Amino acid sequence: MSFRQHLQGLCKNVDGAVGCALMAVDGIEVETHLEDAGQADLRSLLIEYATLFRGATEAARTYGAGEVSELSIATDQLLTVARMVSPEYFMVVALRPDGNYGKARYLLRVLAPKVRTEL
Amino acid sequence: MSFRQHLQGLCKNVDGAVGCALMAVDGIEVETHLEDAGQADLRSLLIEYATLFRGATEAARTYGAGEVSELSIATDQLLTVARMVSPEYFMVVALRPDGNYGKARYLLRVLAPKVRTEL
Repeated sequence: MSFRQHLQGLCKNVDGAVGCALMAVDGIEVETHLEDAGQADLRSLLIEYATLFRGATEAARTYGAGEVSELSIATDQLLTVARMVSPEYFMVVALRPDGNYGKARYLLRVLAPKVRTEL
Repeated sequence: MSFRQHLQGLCKNVDGAVGCALMAVDGIEVETHLEDAGQADLRSLLIEYATLFRGATEAARTYGAGEVSELSIATDQLLTVARMVSPEYFMVVALRPDGNYGKARYLLRVLAPKVRTEL
């Protein structure tokens, strides 16, 4: 299964999903699948969120909290859930605020090991 | 009720909670209640996480996603959930990975408006 197919399947199976991506922690996209994110410039936002992922990773390592596995950011218009796939890559799903956050987390958890074997 | 009492109540009512704090977005603590965070230097970690909160806020505003309401970071040793109380302050709870994440989110959501009226 291609990365694009994984991402399309993820968006399709999460109510309220407006986009998802496989990205390197330096913010470079491997593959992105966007639906309708409304007013938000989702592509640019996810690149900025990659910077936050790096910041969280550095802080957690520095202060003895181990490795970051997941980062969620909720705004009044968009909910994003990102999960590490490998030390270099993460997957992220963006949802409308009324989207199924629990399902997004669950599917990312299930999908991450599959994607890791294909990286 | 004092901020300290709110924080103690929060920790007491969330299984697996190891600490919570009311902080300004510049990382300065208003009040902190710490139990046992294991190996992690929780106080320093939360200050670093405040920087991430600011970064998320700037990114969301810049790219049209509105205002950040909540930020969660999971590591293999610690789960933190932070929620904006006002534009200048947020509350954060740190849990063990097996802690009750849903209850922490719920109580932060209930408590935030109460704390806001007391700021």
